[in-house]
Amino acid sequence: MVRVGILGAAGYTGGELIRLLLNHPEVEIVFANSESNAGNKVYDVHEGLLGETELEFTSEMPFDKVDVVFFCFGHGKSEAFLKEHSIPANVKIIDLAQDFRIKGDHDYVYGLPETHRKEIAKCQHLANPGCFATCIQLGLLPLAQAGLLTKDISVNAITGSTGAGQKPGATTHFSWRNNNFSVYKLFTHQHLHEICQTLNELKPEGAPHVVDTLDEGYEAEGITVDFIPYRGDFARGIFCTEVVTLETSPAASDIVALYKNFYEQAAFTHYSDKALDLKQVVNTNKALVHVAVFGKKVVITSVIDNLLKGAVGQAVQNMNIMFGLDERAGLNLKASAF
Amino acid sequence: MVRVGILGAAGYTGGELIRLLLNHPEVEIVFANSESNAGNKVYDVHEGLLGETELEFTSEMPFDKVDVVFFCFGHGKSEAFLKEHSIPANVKIIDLAQDFRIKGDHDYVYGLPETHRKEIAKCQHLANPGCFATCIQLGLLPLAQAGLLTKDISVNAITGSTGAGQKPGATTHFSWRNNNFSVYKLFTHQHLHEICQTLNELKPEGAPHVVDTLDEGYEAEGITVDFIPYRGDFARGIFCTEVVTLETSPAASDIVALYKNFYEQAAFTHYSDKALDLKQVVNTNKALVHVAVFGKKVVITSVIDNLLKGAVGQAVQNMNIMFGLDERAGLNLKASAF
Amino acid sequence: MVRVGILGAAGYTGGELIRLLLNHPEVEIVFANSESNAGNKVYDVHEGLLGETELEFTSEMPFDKVDVVFFCFGHGKSEAFLKEHSIPANVKIIDLAQDFRIKGDHDYVYGLPETHRKEIAKCQHLANPGCFATCIQLGLLPLAQAGLLTKDISVNAITGSTGAGQKPGATTHFSWRNNNFSVYKLFTHQHLHEICQTLNELKPEGAPHVVDTLDEGYEAEGITVDFIPYRGDFARGIFCTEVVTLETSPAASDIVALYKNFYEQAAFTHYSDKALDLKQVVNTNKALVHVAVFGKKVVITSVIDNLLKGAVGQAVQNMNIMFGLDERAGLNLKASAF
Amino acid sequence: MVRVGILGAAGYTGGELIRLLLNHPEVEIVFANSESNAGNKVYDVHEGLLGETELEFTSEMPFDKVDVVFFCFGHGKSEAFLKEHSIPANVKIIDLAQDFRIKGDHDYVYGLPETHRKEIAKCQHLANPGCFATCIQLGLLPLAQAGLLTKDISVNAITGSTGAGQKPGATTHFSWRNNNFSVYKLFTHQHLHEICQTLNELKPEGAPHVVDTLDEGYEAEGITVDFIPYRGDFARGIFCTEVVTLETSPAASDIVALYKNFYEQAAFTHYSDKALDLKQVVNTNKALVHVAVFGKKVVITSVIDNLLKGAVGQAVQNMNIMFGLDERAGLNLKASAF
Repeated sequence: MVRVGILGAAGYTGGELIRLLLNHPEVEIVFANSESNAGNKVYDVHEGLLGETELEFTSEMPFDKVDVVFFCFGHGKSEAFLKEHSIPANVKIIDLAQDFRIKGDHDYVYGLPETHRKEIAKCQHLANPGCFATCIQLGLLPLAQAGLLTKDISVNAITGSTGAGQKPGATTHFSWRNNNFSVYKLFTHQHLHEICQTLNELKPEGAPHVVDTLDEGYEAEGITVDFIPYRGDFARGIFCTEVVTLETSPAASDIVALYKNFYEQAAFTHYSDKALDLKQVVNTNKALVHVAVFGKKVVITSVIDNLLKGAVGQAVQNMNIMFGLDERAGLNLKASAF
Repeated sequence: MVRVGILGAAGYTGGELIRLLLNHPEVEIVFANSESNAGNKVYDVHEGLLGETELEFTSEMPFDKVDVVFFCFGHGKSEAFLKEHSIPANVKIIDLAQDFRIKGDHDYVYGLPETHRKEIAKCQHLANPGCFATCIQLGLLPLAQAGLLTKDISVNAITGSTGAGQKPGATTHFSWRNNNFSVYKLFTHQHLHEICQTLNELKPEGAPHVVDTLDEGYEAEGITVDFIPYRGDFARGIFCTEVVTLETSPAASDIVALYKNFYEQAAFTHYSDKALDLKQVVNTNKALVHVAVFGKKVVITSVIDNLLKGAVGQAVQNMNIMFGLDERAGLNLKASAF
Repeated sequence: MVRVGILGAAGYTGGELIRLLLNHPEVEIVFANSESNAGNKVYDVHEGLLGETELEFTSEMPFDKVDVVFFCFGHGKSEAFLKEHSIPANVKIIDLAQDFRIKGDHDYVYGLPETHRKEIAKCQHLANPGCFATCIQLGLLPLAQAGLLTKDISVNAITGSTGAGQKPGATTHFSWRNNNFSVYKLFTHQHLHEICQTLNELKPEGAPHVVDTLDEGYEAEGITVDFIPYRGDFARGIFCTEVVTLETSPAASDIVALYKNFYEQAAFTHYSDKALDLKQVVNTNKALVHVAVFGKKVVITSVIDNLLKGAVGQAVQNMNIMFGLDERAGLNLKASAF
Repeated sequence: MVRVGILGAAGYTGGELIRLLLNHPEVEIVFANSESNAGNKVYDVHEGLLGETELEFTSEMPFDKVDVVFFCFGHGKSEAFLKEHSIPANVKIIDLAQDFRIKGDHDYVYGLPETHRKEIAKCQHLANPGCFATCIQLGLLPLAQAGLLTKDISVNAITGSTGAGQKPGATTHFSWRNNNFSVYKLFTHQHLHEICQTLNELKPEGAPHVVDTLDEGYEAEGITVDFIPYRGDFARGIFCTEVVTLETSPAASDIVALYKNFYEQAAFTHYSDKALDLKQVVNTNKALVHVAVFGKKVVITSVIDNLLKGAVGQAVQNMNIMFGLDERAGLNLKASAF
């Protein structure tokens, strides 16, 4: 049994992680840390856990009793936490925040199993990808690897409200968001960093540099990912389309084959022959990808559940890989479907 | 032209009032007060006003330049405001809060036109009814007046999220409320006060006392209004059912006739021969009422838009009556329908 | 392994059943029958199954190869089907329709584990309860058994759209139903039959007869279940309140204890100390029940997922009992929560 | 008073037209034709009209008694109708279908007031623009006129369910659409015809041809409008983003000035300095437009209510222009806002 500790257990990702791990056959939750909720039952905070567990939040962090710790903090807090606390070297860390996703002076592996499976299997510290980043990358990876990304890429992605976290605010107020639709962080979403990093890692030599416009600006040499994020009026899921312009018009069947091959071994990412809708993946750890071709333009659709494949589900998938478990353990989830 | 001042103009009811009054043929908005938004355009805060008006919020309150002031404060603040400010005697006040709905040491008239039309026409100060209270009373008034309320009354009413106001919180968080349903203030909703007050005023001599259980408790002599309020996952509207048990089984046609007669002269309350759905009244000032009879039981359905007939629309209707205008002026609203 | 056949596999309950059984550790799906979809992949029809299974619909019904058949037909079709087809005596039948819920000239056991667990364990043929009926009964059973149902019972229950099935129509049109609320089958819902049957079975001698008003009319001797069903604007779930008037004012703690004791052994029905919201149970097989007391009035809230505890989940729970499996096998579902 | 006849009065656009015209100060509805509903009250079909009118559907079409006829048929039926019926030459026609939007062997003027105001004022027959087409064009017109459309244009637009009309189907089933998101008619939506027609009419000489890819294919010489339509899970509204790549990086202020100037005289289209959300325009005839600039890329957001500015509201606006009325008559609508 993998012994698990959870930090930030009272937030959205903390709750979803508990919901997953309670049914994971190879996991024991040792502690679920939440200073402000210490002593309360987890079902007092997290919907759907009444009758499933008597687990209580704790203010303790007994790192010596666990094999892995999940950081379910808000962004920026993981790094701060590590400066103030010491976690034994033999305890693995899975960080759901963005603090260590970009390579630098640390040993965190970027946890996208579709591209980094081998490093994940060997790593001690893992940076779990962002939700938009996961969905967008899964749409682009096969073309990136094939060196077919040579012109600016148009990305439109719509997220559910759970992406904005637990703290209520103006844009998550039901009266405002219900039946509404809006755009935000136009062309400037922070997930561009990790998307560009992966695309540049994956591209063959000679293929154009993918410009991280947040760092390099819009006038830099290379191609750009022109990403428009939208707020949808649903709670779970990301629906993404990407338009890639090739140098010459491809055969649609070649592009489809490229995608099918790329994802043949993937545990949770599948190619769909038909157009997609979001609820095909809601409440699952799956990603679905579909492509269509118009002249030189390839239009990709990709969908995930932002809390699962876009966050906690992928974190558990990574844990499974890190501990040599069945990659699907604890992740055979019934789609909510409706 | 009626010159209008608005206090609390940046809240939900303030915004809806501005949306109404801008199209009111007999009204000029003199000031829209909001300390915290002073100097901003009203369209910066209120959806749907861009392109309609260049009106700005002001911190001023020039009471000498207006004929009527609307109090769009939160509950409890109207009374507090009047202790600290002096409003000229010739300026009428329409208070949307609950501060003066219950009779007492004040001259506010309860603003339900279906029962208090004459007093409203003559009054200087008006207490606008609560949203649930309006919908529930409109379902019960004909039976109350006829002395047919002799047993406990079962009331179930579902409200939209705008009833909870602008401040975001746990139960108005989209991620929680979307596709959710819940109950609150079970049997203890504060609107029971005004409902019981009206029913007791209207009942013929000899009919049982309607117990205000909040004040008198559940063991008091009389009949009770057993009111279960629910939070629905929509933004606008109240859907209410009421079950009244009569002494003997009535003819359905008699009950229908009672309702049709009672509301024959009402400007906005209509009897429907068919079962109701909420969107028949959303974005209108209408109330619709329907009855069905099963043995001794009369089942009434009533629906309103909580922000309009349940708040601001009724306030404007009352203003029209108070100033001798056409009761429907400014209230010929297109139902949103979808 | 229990070998399963599914009839009516292309409908809502058929799809939900497949989603459940694919992850059931003791089950093998032998056939999923749908004449009109024969040859198609089940994931072509049912959301969320792409990547989970390559199972195809079939027009075959090899009853000799299965241990149990689930009837996922529309109401009335089960009986018709059995007149035209012969199912071997050793094959168990679980019928999700209402055809055999009322006792009569058949051997079907009513499949509410909270009351009929022993008969279910021994039965060959099972009639799975209705969704509203399950939720309403779970709210009333402890009081019924204690002989405390002596006056008319007020029931209000709101259902999600999946309760109306797969065929699109006016009241399931998104443009109409979205943000809408309505009432239907007022006091005349067909589930009253099975509710009254159970309550009369369970009540102690001397307690009043519960009148099936659909059969006996509103003037019959006894107490009535005054049930108002509503259409909510969500897809999954039933939220129910019930008001029961006792002869004398009880201690709230006694009523709570009554409920806790009654459901102590239940695998999926739990008492909640706090007020409920629907999403606590959505996408799970759980029922939650809560009570509050006001004078002589007991107010019960009960919630289920209409497709799971209200239909397919309970059917699988019954299958587990019928085959001596762990009652929770295949039903440890992650709540969707959002 | 303008005397109006309505054909196809029982559909979504027919209903919305009646809701508008009942409050139009210069209009009298002479007949509302619907063969299948003849003799029924319009409020029996159209939400929100109970208490507003006793108007009945009729099977008559007394064209000699009206000044203008609105065709609220489904697409393709207007032309068919005119082959079988004769409408007097002095009766104006406003066709809401797509039958006459493309120039050809007819005298219908394309009814986009922002570009064709003068022709509309003089015309006898008018083809009202499509909903997507209106929203997309309003986002592109200023750039088109300035000759700045020189590269392929990326368009993403999300529509509410009312765009799919009254007939229920799989993709308008509440159980499916609620909390769902999907894509359809990828790069092949029929509104491309009228969009390309307008852009080509408006562009200065020398600017590139806008390829109607539906007719000319993706290999034709010129620039393309790469349009991805989405189905949103709301009932009313279209939210559109468009990315245009210029030859050189512009000053954002120049682009903003271009838009402000272009729409300075428009009665219902306004430039917003802030990012947009859909509910700013829902239940109004307004269009709002916003631009942002990133390097050479101009990102435009435009929003409308698909049933109003995208259909019936614009039709009434056109009627007002055709009859020399105030362009805003009958269209001072209260935004639903929530």
